[in-house]
Amino acid sequence: MKKDSLKVAVIGGGSSYTPELIEGFIQRYPALPVRDLYLVDIEAGREKLEIVGALAKRMVEKAGVPIRVHLTLDRREAIRGADFVTTQIRVGLLAARARDERIPLRYGCIGQETTGAGGFAKALRTIPVILDICRDMEELAPDAFLLNFTNPAGLVTEAVIKHANIRSIGLCNLPIGTRMQVAQMAGVHPSDVEMEWVGLNHLNWVTQLRVQGEDALDVILDKAAGTGALGVKNVPDFGLDHDFLRTLGALPCSYLRYYYMPDQMLNEAQEAAQTKGTRAEVVQALERELFALYKDPNLAVKPPQLAERGGAYYSLAAVHLMDSIYNNRKDIQTVNVRNGGVLSFLPDDVSIEVNCVIDAQGAHPVHVETPIPPQLRGLIQVVKAYEELTVEAAVKGDVGAAVQALTIHPLVTSAQAARSLVADIIAENRAYLPQFA
Amino acid sequence: MKKDSLKVAVIGGGSSYTPELIEGFIQRYPALPVRDLYLVDIEAGREKLEIVGALAKRMVEKAGVPIRVHLTLDRREAIRGADFVTTQIRVGLLAARARDERIPLRYGCIGQETTGAGGFAKALRTIPVILDICRDMEELAPDAFLLNFTNPAGLVTEAVIKHANIRSIGLCNLPIGTRMQVAQMAGVHPSDVEMEWVGLNHLNWVTQLRVQGEDALDVILDKAAGTGALGVKNVPDFGLDHDFLRTLGALPCSYLRYYYMPDQMLNEAQEAAQTKGTRAEVVQALERELFALYKDPNLAVKPPQLAERGGAYYSLAAVHLMDSIYNNRKDIQTVNVRNGGVLSFLPDDVSIEVNCVIDAQGAHPVHVETPIPPQLRGLIQVVKAYEELTVEAAVKGDVGAAVQALTIHPLVTSAQAARSLVADIIAENRAYLPQFA
Amino acid sequence: MKKDSLKVAVIGGGSSYTPELIEGFIQRYPALPVRDLYLVDIEAGREKLEIVGALAKRMVEKAGVPIRVHLTLDRREAIRGADFVTTQIRVGLLAARARDERIPLRYGCIGQETTGAGGFAKALRTIPVILDICRDMEELAPDAFLLNFTNPAGLVTEAVIKHANIRSIGLCNLPIGTRMQVAQMAGVHPSDVEMEWVGLNHLNWVTQLRVQGEDALDVILDKAAGTGALGVKNVPDFGLDHDFLRTLGALPCSYLRYYYMPDQMLNEAQEAAQTKGTRAEVVQALERELFALYKDPNLAVKPPQLAERGGAYYSLAAVHLMDSIYNNRKDIQTVNVRNGGVLSFLPDDVSIEVNCVIDAQGAHPVHVETPIPPQLRGLIQVVKAYEELTVEAAVKGDVGAAVQALTIHPLVTSAQAARSLVADIIAENRAYLPQFA
Amino acid sequence: MKKDSLKVAVIGGGSSYTPELIEGFIQRYPALPVRDLYLVDIEAGREKLEIVGALAKRMVEKAGVPIRVHLTLDRREAIRGADFVTTQIRVGLLAARARDERIPLRYGCIGQETTGAGGFAKALRTIPVILDICRDMEELAPDAFLLNFTNPAGLVTEAVIKHANIRSIGLCNLPIGTRMQVAQMAGVHPSDVEMEWVGLNHLNWVTQLRVQGEDALDVILDKAAGTGALGVKNVPDFGLDHDFLRTLGALPCSYLRYYYMPDQMLNEAQEAAQTKGTRAEVVQALERELFALYKDPNLAVKPPQLAERGGAYYSLAAVHLMDSIYNNRKDIQTVNVRNGGVLSFLPDDVSIEVNCVIDAQGAHPVHVETPIPPQLRGLIQVVKAYEELTVEAAVKGDVGAAVQALTIHPLVTSAQAARSLVADIIAENRAYLPQFA
Repeated sequence: MKKDSLKVAVIGGGSSYTPELIEGFIQRYPALPVRDLYLVDIEAGREKLEIVGALAKRMVEKAGVPIRVHLTLDRREAIRGADFVTTQIRVGLLAARARDERIPLRYGCIGQETTGAGGFAKALRTIPVILDICRDMEELAPDAFLLNFTNPAGLVTEAVIKHANIRSIGLCNLPIGTRMQVAQMAGVHPSDVEMEWVGLNHLNWVTQLRVQGEDALDVILDKAAGTGALGVKNVPDFGLDHDFLRTLGALPCSYLRYYYMPDQMLNEAQEAAQTKGTRAEVVQALERELFALYKDPNLAVKPPQLAERGGAYYSLAAVHLMDSIYNNRKDIQTVNVRNGGVLSFLPDDVSIEVNCVIDAQGAHPVHVETPIPPQLRGLIQVVKAYEELTVEAAVKGDVGAAVQALTIHPLVTSAQAARSLVADIIAENRAYLPQFA
Repeated sequence: MKKDSLKVAVIGGGSSYTPELIEGFIQRYPALPVRDLYLVDIEAGREKLEIVGALAKRMVEKAGVPIRVHLTLDRREAIRGADFVTTQIRVGLLAARARDERIPLRYGCIGQETTGAGGFAKALRTIPVILDICRDMEELAPDAFLLNFTNPAGLVTEAVIKHANIRSIGLCNLPIGTRMQVAQMAGVHPSDVEMEWVGLNHLNWVTQLRVQGEDALDVILDKAAGTGALGVKNVPDFGLDHDFLRTLGALPCSYLRYYYMPDQMLNEAQEAAQTKGTRAEVVQALERELFALYKDPNLAVKPPQLAERGGAYYSLAAVHLMDSIYNNRKDIQTVNVRNGGVLSFLPDDVSIEVNCVIDAQGAHPVHVETPIPPQLRGLIQVVKAYEELTVEAAVKGDVGAAVQALTIHPLVTSAQAARSLVADIIAENRAYLPQFA
Repeated sequence: MKKDSLKVAVIGGGSSYTPELIEGFIQRYPALPVRDLYLVDIEAGREKLEIVGALAKRMVEKAGVPIRVHLTLDRREAIRGADFVTTQIRVGLLAARARDERIPLRYGCIGQETTGAGGFAKALRTIPVILDICRDMEELAPDAFLLNFTNPAGLVTEAVIKHANIRSIGLCNLPIGTRMQVAQMAGVHPSDVEMEWVGLNHLNWVTQLRVQGEDALDVILDKAAGTGALGVKNVPDFGLDHDFLRTLGALPCSYLRYYYMPDQMLNEAQEAAQTKGTRAEVVQALERELFALYKDPNLAVKPPQLAERGGAYYSLAAVHLMDSIYNNRKDIQTVNVRNGGVLSFLPDDVSIEVNCVIDAQGAHPVHVETPIPPQLRGLIQVVKAYEELTVEAAVKGDVGAAVQALTIHPLVTSAQAARSLVADIIAENRAYLPQFA
Repeated sequence: MKKDSLKVAVIGGGSSYTPELIEGFIQRYPALPVRDLYLVDIEAGREKLEIVGALAKRMVEKAGVPIRVHLTLDRREAIRGADFVTTQIRVGLLAARARDERIPLRYGCIGQETTGAGGFAKALRTIPVILDICRDMEELAPDAFLLNFTNPAGLVTEAVIKHANIRSIGLCNLPIGTRMQVAQMAGVHPSDVEMEWVGLNHLNWVTQLRVQGEDALDVILDKAAGTGALGVKNVPDFGLDHDFLRTLGALPCSYLRYYYMPDQMLNEAQEAAQTKGTRAEVVQALERELFALYKDPNLAVKPPQLAERGGAYYSLAAVHLMDSIYNNRKDIQTVNVRNGGVLSFLPDDVSIEVNCVIDAQGAHPVHVETPIPPQLRGLIQVVKAYEELTVEAAVKGDVGAAVQALTIHPLVTSAQAARSLVADIIAENRAYLPQFA
């Protein structure tokens, strides 16, 4: 890209995360000259957009960078001629997420924003909206990059790969977060940590790990055993034991606790649902507090309370990715892309999350060299099959595909549970699932 | 094969199934001239061998065929120069099977002879013995075929593929049984039924089904819905519903009920364990009755009570396979063989169960043409990964591989359960698991 | 198929080969009840159609079978409701073939009916006509099988696989001819010969060979060394030496002489072109004689002189294939089909020639077990790449693809020669290459 | 690598190229602290080693860098504890190369140092010596990198991949040379050129080409048409035409002229052989002049005449690669590595030449995204099959594999020529081919 000023459209600009992103654009301005920043939201999000948009403007002004912040409900205006389109939407808002978390509990299954039946419900709601955005991009900004931060990011990326004709990359903050945590465990700077990252979004492992050039996988596995070491805000922290990690031979991401210790995770979820509320319900309170803070006309920086919200390093990851594309940096980042033979045991046209060289053309996977052992491969394959069926169900409104998807998901307990889950999810999300009408 | 008389060694010849096999050899004698039939067993099985061996001799004599039945505890004598070696062994006898069925229930997991943690325990005990038999064959009968009927047949076949240098085929009675049942449902002769069979042993589906040349898959799926239609003695009969089967798009084998309705299967198993006993315990009583019958010096045919034992058509399948090899028939049978690219989504050197052309060189898979949908593929892949790890654990005595194997098995509830299962299985099978010493 | 009377359309029915086919239908009538046999030709072939059609009627009448022979120039009438459509067409007649043989000689390249630049030219003329026939079948006989005997059979089959939506099989008489010759060399009945056949049409090898069940590859390779043993009418007989065949490790088909000894073949072709004429020119004379014979109203059997024409066993192969489809025989025949992973080193949607199980649904490849050594694989791959480009050129009329196709063909000497060949072929076949207009 | 001083062993240190390399080490010293540089040669090269070694010492001294230059005939001493081992050997010296160039001409085939029968002969001589070096490294420097610059680099790299257990990378100066030439054609700095590079050593294409971020493939193809634009010293400059390059769709390397215009290349070679001598013979004179220059005790820099020798940028490529490994730079360079699925149409364990990320662990291929069209793929596949057979022949001394290798090589005219070539090559290189004794 040779432009010296950029247009960026942030779909879901009214999100509480937006100050993160604004901070990122401000800090990176010398390298990434964002001139026009469009924060887009829908009518239902108008109030939040106005609050967060006003904060964004104050932040920019205080920082003294020439970014023009535009607030709009007109998505097409925002996308027209954009260089980057990012999405951070939540179809149905946190109320829908709370349902995603509670419906599975009825059938003894885990409900989670991105994993299992909860992530499945979110995918059904989200994929059609993202594909609508792609339609706009195909028409109004055919050369732009779609950088998708909307969960479930792997499923959304796969839908775009299969059903749109634009350049896109799916991004998650887990890779950068893991780097930070490993660096802390090893007592080194994050740039001293190198990781081979393999799998799907929220179902991945670090299969090679070097600290200051030395193989440190076993050392970090030992440190990661038990609780407290590696984790994200969204996932309860039950530790895996040392022996298990050593024979696993790879560092699992936090979300793998749902697969490795579903009993404990389910118990915790059921207890939380009856006491403090599900994660969505906790976050709803948090969000109310955040927006109260954001309204303060004297606030012109990202408030520290945002860190409680989760999504740490999200802004760093997003702005880093745009910078590398804009500046053709050819550095290595971990993102969601089309497989295309990189993991030879998966179909070609699915999304995977691996290390990629990022340049002006996008993300180019680096060949995965460590042989993937069966204990990783089998899980990746069955969850990917679930994802393929989920994308098909979401795009076609196919109830049969939806039931088959959940039936093979490791966190759904039976075909009968799958059928009940699909029925409840469709019934209780009717406004957001026109494809199943 | 141009020999006009054959030597067959039946390892585990003292099995209650043996009269089935003898009946098969008698009926097929004109096409398959078995001259020397060695029934081999171990010291612990001497009494059963003598009882069933005497019956076998009476059966042969009554039938007037020139088969010489030899009873021996010397496996090497039996194998030396054999044309076919068949195995129908049960390491640890039914008492071990009963443990396989009960240990998993402690952790809320299904215990079954071939599936899940029960089949896993059986594999750990059985694979080393089978590989010992292969060592004997490599030395004493390098051109013989090993026809393996010992469960878990898929895991055993894979161990032989990876760790022995002999010709082998794994056989199961499900394919022929399914053909019989479909024929009955359709009101036609079994030879009027054609099936494309895809998957692993005890984890397979009929993906194309024609009756008298016409596509009949949907018709049979509709008939197979609910209970009573398709089933085997070993697997409780809970039906799958019509919609599920239609969107599944393939006829699942009986053992898939463990995957599709684990709750009901587990409840049934737990209740049975507390009342009538597990399947092994029921079978133990049955076996006692059978051997009482077998002792009757006036009995010279297979008694009808054997049908209660399960394993229907086992003899038919076994003798049919030998016949096609001996006579280079080039007909199509469904057996367990090396994958070698037939299912491109699995590694090359694993076992699969598919239609094969059977000739004098062995079993040659017919190309699978129906694209395998994700709802089948994902399950096949994750169970195959479990199988690869199980074979590795069984051969190397690797506890870590064992824990990882069970952790990813869809019927094991957590990594913690996997660890406990492995610990209990090793502790309670110590006599049969020298590799873990 | 349950019909008790069949309709067969023979496109190119005026061919001198037709009496072969008629003889086949007569002999096989009890198993294959062809009731209506349509011989179709174009206006330019009307006279030949009438001559050969009259002979066909006399043959049927003399044999006393109830086959109705219909002669027509209306292809759609012949195809409507047909069970089998066979093609044995020659677009541009023998005059075009003679040009195909002579043009390459100008540039020091081999000109041959099916191989190299000659086969390439024939493909450009033939593929559009075959695809027109497919269009008619899609509309008028969607369940019929297209059995293609038209050369270059591999290229034509691939065009149908990629660009039509009908069931088709490509057939060649080399496999059956090779079986006959090997049987003769071994002094056994053809049914005693078993061959694993691998490659592309006219570029294939026997990689396993058993005679009466015993491995006989080396014995037959030794017998095949030198001249006189294996050959077809169309290909000059220069022998390969014993050492070469042994290290090749497979029995090459006759057409491979063009690849293994292009110098001698080219010399022979150039000399023939200057003396007795090319093969097409020789055949033209032969055909005139044959049609003179066919006109004889007293002739009511296939005249022995037809054997000189080449195409031995063509009728046997064709009728055998129809028989196995009609009767769902599930026997093994060697035909041209979609690859679909059978040869894993080629793309999925190309044609290959391998052993297949033939049943009522068509041809199903048997898994190829012998690892294909590099000396076979490399040649198969480069010629297949040529074929893919040729099909693309033929379908799209793409001169660039045509030049690239010939450039990589092992029998074309340079990119410059490729360019000249394409220019001359298009210029001298203008009437038959509307796609390049 | 955290060492602050490095040991480098240069096998074939007496080469006339060595001053290139010395210059590179001197210039890069701040980033790449080579402390001990061992120039190793064999007894036959002692004099050259002493001459070039003395020059190297003068160069280092004049530059004032603390590199210690060691001259030795003891290879094991040089390898012991080395960080990098580079090879630039010529088994049989230029006299053998001259034979490689002349023998093929007898049979109307191209003789060239790396391509066709000439490169084949060189591979037979070189591979055993390289594998001996690997044996030393496995024992004496198991963590060192072998950076192989010895031709034929692709074949040598493949032999090391298949038959040694060390870390290695094969390097060629074509990628950097092409970058330089494209930059010149585009009027930009070399760092403004980005290329996707696909294929094998000396059989490769640029399939994507961007100049200053813009797609420039077609522009450069047009400029590359005809003569004079792209070329290397070793390859006569006959141009390819514009239309051909456009439909080829990729920029071919200079060596592809042997495949695309073998007639002209052969004529040129035959004429040169009768007049000025083959390339080796020209180079022999050049080398004599160079060594005369090198002897001058006043010379302490690389003399400009070395540029005539060929191998431009060789030093730049070599030192750049070591620098990126030593400093874990993660930049992208084009080198020869194990395929491992990167080019899915080739076996896994062969060498390919593609863009790689270079870090402290070695070279990691970047996923190739452009679909490789058949006109590239077919040629790559057939030449790779030749290479596989050649490596096998070189390692095992297998005459049959050697004949089969040359038979399928596109630049060998027949199986008979292949046989004669193998016979002559073995006979005339007897001293260097103990494996064929």
